[in-house]
Amino acid sequence: MNYSEKAIDAEQRLKGLQIDLPAPPKPLGAYVESVQSGELLFLSGTLPIENGASRFYGRIGDNLTIDDGRNAARLAVLNALALAKAHLKSLNRVKRVIRLGVSLVTAESFREHPKVADGASELLAAVFGPDKVSTRLVLGVHSLPLGLCVELEVIFEITD
Amino acid sequence: MNYSEKAIDAEQRLKGLQIDLPAPPKPLGAYVESVQSGELLFLSGTLPIENGASRFYGRIGDNLTIDDGRNAARLAVLNALALAKAHLKSLNRVKRVIRLGVSLVTAESFREHPKVADGASELLAAVFGPDKVSTRLVLGVHSLPLGLCVELEVIFEITD
Amino acid sequence: MNYSEKAIDAEQRLKGLQIDLPAPPKPLGAYVESVQSGELLFLSGTLPIENGASRFYGRIGDNLTIDDGRNAARLAVLNALALAKAHLKSLNRVKRVIRLGVSLVTAESFREHPKVADGASELLAAVFGPDKVSTRLVLGVHSLPLGLCVELEVIFEITD
Repeated sequence: MNYSEKAIDAEQRLKGLQIDLPAPPKPLGAYVESVQSGELLFLSGTLPIENGASRFYGRIGDNLTIDDGRNAARLAVLNALALAKAHLKSLNRVKRVIRLGVSLVTAESFREHPKVADGASELLAAVFGPDKVSTRLVLGVHSLPLGLCVELEVIFEITD
Repeated sequence: MNYSEKAIDAEQRLKGLQIDLPAPPKPLGAYVESVQSGELLFLSGTLPIENGASRFYGRIGDNLTIDDGRNAARLAVLNALALAKAHLKSLNRVKRVIRLGVSLVTAESFREHPKVADGASELLAAVFGPDKVSTRLVLGVHSLPLGLCVELEVIFEITD
Repeated sequence: MNYSEKAIDAEQRLKGLQIDLPAPPKPLGAYVESVQSGELLFLSGTLPIENGASRFYGRIGDNLTIDDGRNAARLAVLNALALAKAHLKSLNRVKRVIRLGVSLVTAESFREHPKVADGASELLAAVFGPDKVSTRLVLGVHSLPLGLCVELEVIFEITD
């Protein structure tokens, strides 16, 4: 294995971070959690759910702090990684994270969306390496499924 | 025609469902309703408009019920199908629905987004078959064009 | 150069419009501003920021007018063009704008989203030509990063 191959070994990084991925989330309706088209892998929106239990209900900047939001975003990333691994068998097949969409339920006057979204981006960078970070689109929304405070959209480029 | 070809004959399914597609919606501004790139067909956001008349104004969980929202989502799917058919000539060229985005205008405390979004997902599954269902991203937004309660984003994979 | 090549010369159009692109925006967190996958170029969300200074805070239909929103959308397009040029070196490598997503912070009863979004679409059409206009998805959101009123998502198809 040469250096550049080592640099993208996401499975090793995950072990180094002592992260055990959760069971992949199950659909909440008539859809599937992942679809591949060519080299793109699309995931359904992922939420802050841990072992089947939803966490972090409410609004960031109101009943939830920035740190709550960051932890919720990190938890939603773990579910996205679990979905990707279930689809790909190995996260080493990820060439790049193309897009991270972060939808946050916020107080009306909230402005610190980037700090919260970094809870997701920093974990993705730690797993896939700083040269594989994504573009990002961050929105403050009005409500999310189940009353949760964050939902992620992830698109990966993968080896076909 | 072998069995697997029959299984993806969306045009036959549409007839079986006794669905007559509406005229495809016209742009509300300086954009187009569909763009193809390689095997991906992107549609503009579709709304619950029937024969040129907007329906289902307001907020789900407030003046609109879950069933209203489901019917609005179903109507927006018909417009997406009409756009896809206008672009492709035949829906049988759809290999897969890749992404369904569902934006709902909701009451602040609304949590039943998946039930409403299933109004769209179930119709897509009925037309394209249960093995062709999409990933899904569901958001509760603050407002939508024209004051309507649902907007869909659909990306298809098609035969080029 | 034949006529069809001239028709897509975005750099010439930009000069004709007397537009000097701003410096490309810098990430607000742990992400990058552009990622290419095959013929698709994804950009991070762009905001109405001019020479490093944010402009157009608040809600369209409340403290901001439709014209404010159009100017904000136009400014966010300039930042998207600056990012695309930084990535591609020349905007003539753009084959098509595939997707324009427009997220607007609006008053609750606001319905004129298409007029505001046209501030972005019309500038893109002026730069890339009327035959290169995108699909569009327009949402009214609750809040956006930094308290700004518009965020754009742009996906281009490019020559690889």
